[in-house]
Amino acid sequence: MKDRTTRRLAKVRASMQATGTQLVALGPGAHMQWILGFHPHPDERPCLLLIGDEREAFLMPSLNAEDTRQRSTIVCHPWSDDEGPVKALISALDDVGARDVKSMVLDETMRADFAMLLVDHLTLTRRSFTEKTVGALRMRKDVEEYRSLKENAAIADQAMQRGFDALKEGRSELDIAAVIQSQFKAQKAEMKFAIVASGPNGALPHHKTGNRKLTEGEPIVMDIGGQKGEYFSDITRLAVLGNPSDEIRKVHDIVDRAVRNALATARPGIKAMEVDNAARSIIAKAGYGDFFVHRTGHGLGIEVHEPPYISASSETILETGMVFSIEPGIYLPGRFGVRLEEIVILREDGPEILSSLPRDIFSL
Amino acid sequence: MKDRTTRRLAKVRASMQATGTQLVALGPGAHMQWILGFHPHPDERPCLLLIGDEREAFLMPSLNAEDTRQRSTIVCHPWSDDEGPVKALISALDDVGARDVKSMVLDETMRADFAMLLVDHLTLTRRSFTEKTVGALRMRKDVEEYRSLKENAAIADQAMQRGFDALKEGRSELDIAAVIQSQFKAQKAEMKFAIVASGPNGALPHHKTGNRKLTEGEPIVMDIGGQKGEYFSDITRLAVLGNPSDEIRKVHDIVDRAVRNALATARPGIKAMEVDNAARSIIAKAGYGDFFVHRTGHGLGIEVHEPPYISASSETILETGMVFSIEPGIYLPGRFGVRLEEIVILREDGPEILSSLPRDIFSL
Repeated sequence: MKDRTTRRLAKVRASMQATGTQLVALGPGAHMQWILGFHPHPDERPCLLLIGDEREAFLMPSLNAEDTRQRSTIVCHPWSDDEGPVKALISALDDVGARDVKSMVLDETMRADFAMLLVDHLTLTRRSFTEKTVGALRMRKDVEEYRSLKENAAIADQAMQRGFDALKEGRSELDIAAVIQSQFKAQKAEMKFAIVASGPNGALPHHKTGNRKLTEGEPIVMDIGGQKGEYFSDITRLAVLGNPSDEIRKVHDIVDRAVRNALATARPGIKAMEVDNAARSIIAKAGYGDFFVHRTGHGLGIEVHEPPYISASSETILETGMVFSIEPGIYLPGRFGVRLEEIVILREDGPEILSSLPRDIFSL
Repeated sequence: MKDRTTRRLAKVRASMQATGTQLVALGPGAHMQWILGFHPHPDERPCLLLIGDEREAFLMPSLNAEDTRQRSTIVCHPWSDDEGPVKALISALDDVGARDVKSMVLDETMRADFAMLLVDHLTLTRRSFTEKTVGALRMRKDVEEYRSLKENAAIADQAMQRGFDALKEGRSELDIAAVIQSQFKAQKAEMKFAIVASGPNGALPHHKTGNRKLTEGEPIVMDIGGQKGEYFSDITRLAVLGNPSDEIRKVHDIVDRAVRNALATARPGIKAMEVDNAARSIIAKAGYGDFFVHRTGHGLGIEVHEPPYISASSETILETGMVFSIEPGIYLPGRFGVRLEEIVILREDGPEILSSLPRDIFSL
């Protein structure tokens, strides 16, 4: 763990030097997790990892200081609920030589009050988020990270299969999600989300799984993900109770062709927007362009959504080792939706799909 | 739901007027939930509820617009992954008459990048967080909120009792947490956290429940909470496998006296710091002042931690209807810890405890 932290801090500092960044400030979240292998308890108490050009230090709520010291040798500047965080923040900034920095990179996911605490106590001329430092580094996965993602993908395949097997007229979306949850659990993973979106609910990309009962002939979008260890899974498939109508088959086929065209396009050196365009153009040509209402994909790692984002405007150059989703969809309001999602790792010769489940319509 | 939203928006606007606030900006979190009864899917896509002096509007990722329109009549200003949020933000600000506001209240829990998006597109002379507007309003619970909190407290009592019953030498902290989780589930609630901190782990207020095995004679801090509907539970008790030592009894008794003194002190019109002092002075007089490393309590509602905070520096005046925890503790590093926690609602004549479980040491 210590070796990993040292190695990753060195990478962060190299990226700081390359971008003229004097201070990186992270909250208790995924960026901190990636560097340290843990993060302190997140709550409303300001907690920050400050990375200066040579030293790093924690601003730490005193009630979590002991816990953190057991996990890390990084110096804690503790503050109590009574005195508040300002004095400890100044001392932590001094410690890492960052009292007078002009350029700071801020963890975009930290709470607004943490961010303003920093901004209000520095005289910055330049602030940005992590997209060229920690965020960029996290995009390319090493062998260990790949193994964990691959294991998680296999677990999600099993959970999806179990979800398919549970589909039955009269059962509710939540019933199916419960089966999926217990299958994740049986494999020592934690289900992190399960969108089971039946009939018209499938037209809502982020449908909240509810009490709607499954009905013969309706398509069901199933988008599930879990976590075992630090890494996530994320997969979407389409199921139909009974015989899929010609229209459902047709829309499914368009979305599947969009996935395949994106897979065929994704190569190292290509811009992310070209992959988005590969998926989008298939759907547009088929006449459904207005109904593909989101980007084609997102990175996956210790967060469900992380860089690189595969969108129509993303200039990110794809590189080997990047892990991201390809998940085009067609959403027909009030009627139904189809989304198919693969997680891939980019290899020299193209994307390797982590799942082993076919993308065919699962029908009973 | 609509009535509640209208009523609460009116309260927010009254607080805006009273504090000279021209714009309140909320992210998809508890503040938004309290006003609307829901919040859109939270992710890295900027999503804001903007409340101007007369009108309100959403800045909304387009993939969640349809979903939101099904739940609310508030106008959405959608933006696609392709075009990004800036144009829609400007249009939403125009819509609520807030393009040129000078004073803004910002949801302190929103992501830093959401906050900076706002700050960078306004020319503010004053910004603050919600402590005098939405935050202040949420502190005093109405009858419906009380009922939900009371129901949740009863569920947590059952889960705690089931956890007690499961204690057995050789079982792990996680084993006990799993029993507690299934009891929450059996009552149609979701377990939100379960700190089971045995032996020296009890000295870490935010111990991460793990594989440590329970041992005869050791104290076990059990701090659990769940959620049924919108509201939370939160309760902490102490258990010992076998006969508690004199030292454990003594420390438990001090903490219990601290709870009782805080309960006796909490009255409408009293400052929160006086309640903290009531608990703290008992522990200090007993010689353990250095080992009570956190504030005495926090509000509870649709968040586990919310205002009012019961700390040594809090000037908040307690009022009837406020719901908060009283949870002093003594933490002896490397040895053990004791924390006891009650959730109370403040009545005219003092606090009403929501739990029905005694605070005695549970011993087998």
